[in-house]
Amino acid sequence: MAGASMLPLTTEISPPNVTVDLSIFALVEQALHVLLMKRTTDPFADRWALPGGYIHTNEDPDVDAAARRVLKDKTAVETPYLEQVQSFGDRARDPRGWTVSIAYMALISAADAGLQCGSNAAEVCWWPIEDDCVAPPLAFDHSVILATSIRRLRNKVEYSSLPVHLLPERFTLPDLQAIYERILGRRMDKSAFRKRIAEADFVEAVPGEKRAASNRPAQIYRLKPGSATIFFDRTL
Amino acid sequence: MAGASMLPLTTEISPPNVTVDLSIFALVEQALHVLLMKRTTDPFADRWALPGGYIHTNEDPDVDAAARRVLKDKTAVETPYLEQVQSFGDRARDPRGWTVSIAYMALISAADAGLQCGSNAAEVCWWPIEDDCVAPPLAFDHSVILATSIRRLRNKVEYSSLPVHLLPERFTLPDLQAIYERILGRRMDKSAFRKRIAEADFVEAVPGEKRAASNRPAQIYRLKPGSATIFFDRTL
Repeated sequence: MAGASMLPLTTEISPPNVTVDLSIFALVEQALHVLLMKRTTDPFADRWALPGGYIHTNEDPDVDAAARRVLKDKTAVETPYLEQVQSFGDRARDPRGWTVSIAYMALISAADAGLQCGSNAAEVCWWPIEDDCVAPPLAFDHSVILATSIRRLRNKVEYSSLPVHLLPERFTLPDLQAIYERILGRRMDKSAFRKRIAEADFVEAVPGEKRAASNRPAQIYRLKPGSATIFFDRTL
Repeated sequence: MAGASMLPLTTEISPPNVTVDLSIFALVEQALHVLLMKRTTDPFADRWALPGGYIHTNEDPDVDAAARRVLKDKTAVETPYLEQVQSFGDRARDPRGWTVSIAYMALISAADAGLQCGSNAAEVCWWPIEDDCVAPPLAFDHSVILATSIRRLRNKVEYSSLPVHLLPERFTLPDLQAIYERILGRRMDKSAFRKRIAEADFVEAVPGEKRAASNRPAQIYRLKPGSATIFFDRTL
């Protein structure tokens, strides 16, 4: 903000409303899903929507905290991978007036959320993502927000360790490869994939732990302690 | 927004203020600079700040339009490269209350802006960027916003055609290479650079136009018509 162009706070121009909206991704039955909620009130009553809500200026210290509050309210998950994607704001996206949505994406392990379709009176449901969208028409501009988040996710998957956050704490290398393949929608060469993962150095074998497999037992891996998201020096 | 968690608009909780703040980059004397304005009012009177202002819900159709309005007010430039970077919002960044800043970065050719240090009563000035910051202490959290924008710029420069927007309409390949080198802070091999630029295919020679140089005349190039920002398949 700069003094020269700043309106005094006593101006008649009302500020926009500000919300956070979340694209919460998880793998359900090996396919990428997003969490949607059915709206119970107008506008867009009975339409599916991304979980979200207004910023509570009286309790949220910052925008990330507002996103974490919404995530916890909807999924009971507290410490997932959470990333701000982009802000959307215009006079037309909400019939109640000029509204800014600060869009986030979260990656969680579906097992941690413990949600089941139809199990909640508010109608919270995992929906499969196909061709960068979901089956039901969404409220507001949420289909645009969701598509933007999916593009961000796919772009990052090409050159980062991000997908590991969709897995449970312990996993095998075939589990990890399957997640990259599912999100990117293409098969990968097993030995080339393993070479890149070894180079990126963000997972470690759990000594002595193996899982029975059809041919020979598969080594169990975990994220290296304290590992931040690793970016590869080129795409997979 | 989802109905279940949405507060009614009659709530006592006031929405945050919302501003757009711009990191406007240009090359001045071959070095990367950012446009700063000296604030004339409190808070932070007499401190340098990124140009910005509140969203005018009565005239701005959307957030990008608000950013373009601020850019035009400060630089008289209308059609630059403009990109939303990230939103910053918390209860402490502005002493007047909970404020969200939607940060943008713009790339312009300094020749188009026609600004000169000290030429404007509002004290608008290009400041050189060194080590991801500028010399004067900035108002609000603008040093954090600026550092985030510089990181975004450098990351994109590594694998995109973005820097071409810092050049005048017509340029030589040595001009283009110099810009990449200045922003990334490292020298590049001339033939490898030319190979990558040729592969990326976003510039074209202007037939018959050459510029006198010390050894032999340099071919003049321009951005291919209608070219969007091109992303390379690997870093430079």
